[in-house]
Amino acid sequence: MTLTFGMRAKVPRARDSREAPQRLLFGPGPSNVDPAVTRALAAPIVGHLDPYFLTVMDETMRDLRLAFRTENHHTIPMSGSGTAGLETMMLNLLEPGDEAIVGVIGYFGQRLAEMASRAGALVRRIEAPLGEVIAPERVEAELKRKPAKLVVLVHAETSTGAWQPVEDIARSARAHGALLALDCVASLGGIPVEVDAWGVDAAGTCSQKCLGAPPGLGPVTLGPRAIDAIRRRRAKPQTFYFDVSLVFQYWGEAGGAKERVFHHTAPVAMVYALREALRLALAEGLEARWARHSRVHQHFARGLERLGLELFTPAAHRLPQINVIRIPDGVDDARVRHALLDRGIEIAAGFGPLKGKTWRVGLMGVNADVKRVDVLLGALEEVLKEQNAV
Amino acid sequence: MTLTFGMRAKVPRARDSREAPQRLLFGPGPSNVDPAVTRALAAPIVGHLDPYFLTVMDETMRDLRLAFRTENHHTIPMSGSGTAGLETMMLNLLEPGDEAIVGVIGYFGQRLAEMASRAGALVRRIEAPLGEVIAPERVEAELKRKPAKLVVLVHAETSTGAWQPVEDIARSARAHGALLALDCVASLGGIPVEVDAWGVDAAGTCSQKCLGAPPGLGPVTLGPRAIDAIRRRRAKPQTFYFDVSLVFQYWGEAGGAKERVFHHTAPVAMVYALREALRLALAEGLEARWARHSRVHQHFARGLERLGLELFTPAAHRLPQINVIRIPDGVDDARVRHALLDRGIEIAAGFGPLKGKTWRVGLMGVNADVKRVDVLLGALEEVLKEQNAV
Repeated sequence: MTLTFGMRAKVPRARDSREAPQRLLFGPGPSNVDPAVTRALAAPIVGHLDPYFLTVMDETMRDLRLAFRTENHHTIPMSGSGTAGLETMMLNLLEPGDEAIVGVIGYFGQRLAEMASRAGALVRRIEAPLGEVIAPERVEAELKRKPAKLVVLVHAETSTGAWQPVEDIARSARAHGALLALDCVASLGGIPVEVDAWGVDAAGTCSQKCLGAPPGLGPVTLGPRAIDAIRRRRAKPQTFYFDVSLVFQYWGEAGGAKERVFHHTAPVAMVYALREALRLALAEGLEARWARHSRVHQHFARGLERLGLELFTPAAHRLPQINVIRIPDGVDDARVRHALLDRGIEIAAGFGPLKGKTWRVGLMGVNADVKRVDVLLGALEEVLKEQNAV
Repeated sequence: MTLTFGMRAKVPRARDSREAPQRLLFGPGPSNVDPAVTRALAAPIVGHLDPYFLTVMDETMRDLRLAFRTENHHTIPMSGSGTAGLETMMLNLLEPGDEAIVGVIGYFGQRLAEMASRAGALVRRIEAPLGEVIAPERVEAELKRKPAKLVVLVHAETSTGAWQPVEDIARSARAHGALLALDCVASLGGIPVEVDAWGVDAAGTCSQKCLGAPPGLGPVTLGPRAIDAIRRRRAKPQTFYFDVSLVFQYWGEAGGAKERVFHHTAPVAMVYALREALRLALAEGLEARWARHSRVHQHFARGLERLGLELFTPAAHRLPQINVIRIPDGVDDARVRHALLDRGIEIAAGFGPLKGKTWRVGLMGVNADVKRVDVLLGALEEVLKEQNAV
């Protein structure tokens, strides 16, 4: 970053139309990338079956397991965005006619319901108002009413900033013989995710956001019960690209032959970058990283309070890494965002029904940083003053 | 590259286990990447809805159209590997019960048949022996026998080095009311691809190989007849991630609103890299690039002849960018490849039934270069001498 922290002067745009501008990325992802991760991204390309790359793959799997807090062998970055990882879970775990219960607390829950439905499942939604989360008792009651093959939850709902509790629902799912799949796209690396301790059968995330690599990979982990369900499918998944039975012929089955079978060409540079981002996250320590995200959120929340701004999401289940802010009456949503962008700072509009009513501010990865947040708060104050809003 | 061309000394491996080694990549992809493309890859990340990124998207679409030789608006890099682009074509163009004719001249044709079948299509294969191609009359006869919705061909079959003629088959398909989809993964940027002039309705390629960006994107182009077929689908595709109707809400419909709707987070860095690789390819000129690939292939073929090595693929339909070489009797396949790798040079094993009998040498992108090929030929001669094979 050439940005000087604390500086409030306008940040110049790119010198020519082809050169990427320097931005402080406080949207809900992508976040800025650590320079070490950028260096890894730019390392020399090797073949996707090169002995060196096989080592990179093994280390990436190992470190992803540590990040997901799991011993699941089947833990890899799918070659696509976080959305691709989620669709991998849905298309492999569900077959036409299967019953799926999907918790919908915002756009990303809706999207999982849509994916489950396209996979052919009979989808039963459990919804909560925007900003709220699903109470475990509701899932328990629904499972008692009628069994399901899969329960699906969004752990960190990017559209509302809500933090869905998982542990009790995972227990319910297991007690009723259902699998639990978790959308950890916005949670992994920012708040606790405990795949094994909670009994989560499948989880998907992204390379960007709290993990801090560029966007473009969709890490997933699949537990033994999930793999067993996939092995017992009546028919192949409709997808070749996301068929995990094939993908693990390349990434390697547990205890299987060391020779890898070509499935598709892995995005070599992106895997380099993810491996480096994981190394940095684990070197910091997951607990320390969660604590940093929490501390920086509190610092930001205090700053917002000083500016007279309020958070939309109730404190009881507010995510630290995604801050949804109420736009005060009389303040022009787009004008504020554009004025910030003129200063080289990105925040995001509200999503769906919250568009025009809220802003979303991501404090993720290297951007969960007090000095960077001070730059944001300073710029926000300046812009709101220009609009006579503070 | 720190490799000195013409130098035959052993190339050191990486200095530590985490540092990527320098390789000359003469496998069938990925190839080495131009330094300008690496710089683009490492440019600062911006948001996926940043005004700068929207310009990058538009320029990428424009330059992909020029590379595919098409005016198709619907021309974008899908967020996945080349395989993802091919599956995008299959899952969008085909519905359960549709008839599809798939030309199978090697592994990659088999793979397209597999994808079409998973999409629910009734697949009719037309096969040719390894190294050969499908005669247009056979497709014409099959279409006369029974109509089909889609004819699918592999333009450049990476497993056999065969160059499938397309133009007459495209004419047949159109005359019989079928769509034609083309796998251009190994062809685009290396040999002529004329989507509009030939009447190809859908084509998919990859960011790597002859285009010269790192692996990780799957560019596709969809013509008006393909888009029309997609709009007339009876049901949504089984995939959310690859549903082009949704993906173009983000990339932008022709003449549509300028506001882009979130679908998934684009792999920002990879799109930067592809845009730069396309700029370089178009600056060179497609015809000049095709001529270079052809010239370098001829240079390589003469060198092989001097070494007493023979190409597997008949001259009549031999691809310049993928050279399949017969392994001479008494020569140990793996030993030669490992000895080359010790010198920092990758070539690939044969594929499927050709494994152990052939090597595959890709001369693609920046590696379609006489000086680099001389390094390869020199090393190959040295290694074969060590094994008393020349």
